[in-house]
Amino acid sequence: MEQEMELSAYFPVWDQLSARQQNRLAGAARIRKVEQGGILQEGRGDCLGLVLVRRGRLRACSASPEGRQITLYRLLPGDICLFSASCMMRSLQTEILLEAERDTEFWLINPEVYRQVMEESAPLANFTNELMAGRLSEVMWLVEQIMWQSMDKRLAAFLLEEAGLEESDTLTLTHEQIAGHLGTAREVVTRMLKYFQGEGMVRLRRGAVEILSREKLRQLAG
Amino acid sequence: MEQEMELSAYFPVWDQLSARQQNRLAGAARIRKVEQGGILQEGRGDCLGLVLVRRGRLRACSASPEGRQITLYRLLPGDICLFSASCMMRSLQTEILLEAERDTEFWLINPEVYRQVMEESAPLANFTNELMAGRLSEVMWLVEQIMWQSMDKRLAAFLLEEAGLEESDTLTLTHEQIAGHLGTAREVVTRMLKYFQGEGMVRLRRGAVEILSREKLRQLAG
Repeated sequence: MEQEMELSAYFPVWDQLSARQQNRLAGAARIRKVEQGGILQEGRGDCLGLVLVRRGRLRACSASPEGRQITLYRLLPGDICLFSASCMMRSLQTEILLEAERDTEFWLINPEVYRQVMEESAPLANFTNELMAGRLSEVMWLVEQIMWQSMDKRLAAFLLEEAGLEESDTLTLTHEQIAGHLGTAREVVTRMLKYFQGEGMVRLRRGAVEILSREKLRQLAG
Repeated sequence: MEQEMELSAYFPVWDQLSARQQNRLAGAARIRKVEQGGILQEGRGDCLGLVLVRRGRLRACSASPEGRQITLYRLLPGDICLFSASCMMRSLQTEILLEAERDTEFWLINPEVYRQVMEESAPLANFTNELMAGRLSEVMWLVEQIMWQSMDKRLAAFLLEEAGLEESDTLTLTHEQIAGHLGTAREVVTRMLKYFQGEGMVRLRRGAVEILSREKLRQLAG
């Protein structure tokens, strides 16, 4: 019962499901934990299930064969991850790495049960459609960023986004980690951060970047 | 009646719709034509409707403010375009340019009617989900290509794909057009094509590229 209460918070359409459908979803949900740095999913074959973040933070990224990475999007408490349940849909074929950026607790819903309920419930199918459309829009936005934005603008936007997520102007991130978010080389990040420092936008410390002027970063990010 | 017959070919779930739903969709569909080079949709605000390609070929691409382009995917006869009906879904927010690569004829379904039928029909909603998942997978694949593949491999793969689409080894494409598909500069394409020619993979002619060895291109594309 308590379980259903909590799950209903993730699904705005929960009340439009039958009692039987609600029970099936709740019965197929388990709480799981993963420590910071842990990998939930590594490749195409994986089909963990539908991930609903309770607390912590996950990062979905694409990785090159050589181990370079680019962040696709973040999953915060309340967010649902479809890519971890790609076996739910025939046409969803991607290789996404799912990593815990913080100690994270999440609901894991069996993908086969979810698929079955979705097949008979128009509200759940339409809700899932909206989730998918949201992710598609984010990935499209990323394509635009990669293709048409210079790296200094992307770095400025990234630092502002991080400051928002962390609610802090001090970001404990190495240059290597920042490069892994933006899909570039560490040297490129180091060079740009030094330029940012020269312009009074940030101060660089060991393993951290301190934002001195959000305003200047915003102007650069455009 | 004939209209319904034809529409049913696009929707594998047609038989799972009620007669009323079938009538509503058929009644909201119109045949439209666009000439080669014509633009169906230019930006975020547009919401043309659901596009179902009857004959010809469309190209969906992302464009920079300066007019550079990259092809996201092609729409061939039998394909359905969701991006032209983004008002159907709250979360679908992208700026996609839709261009006719050939003289094209298509069904256009009113997006509001489609949304209403989808809201009450689980089969149609799930089918739309699969369409969306397919596009999402294609765009994810593109991100991987842009990020982790070198331009020579992408060019080789592009030439092979074109040869497949055209069913010909002679591609009437300018270097400028190829650059617009791959999201790069014309000079880069010219340089690489000359290298390909030196390796005996292609022969360059005015306004055309002739493929001499699909096998060598395949090896390069990997």
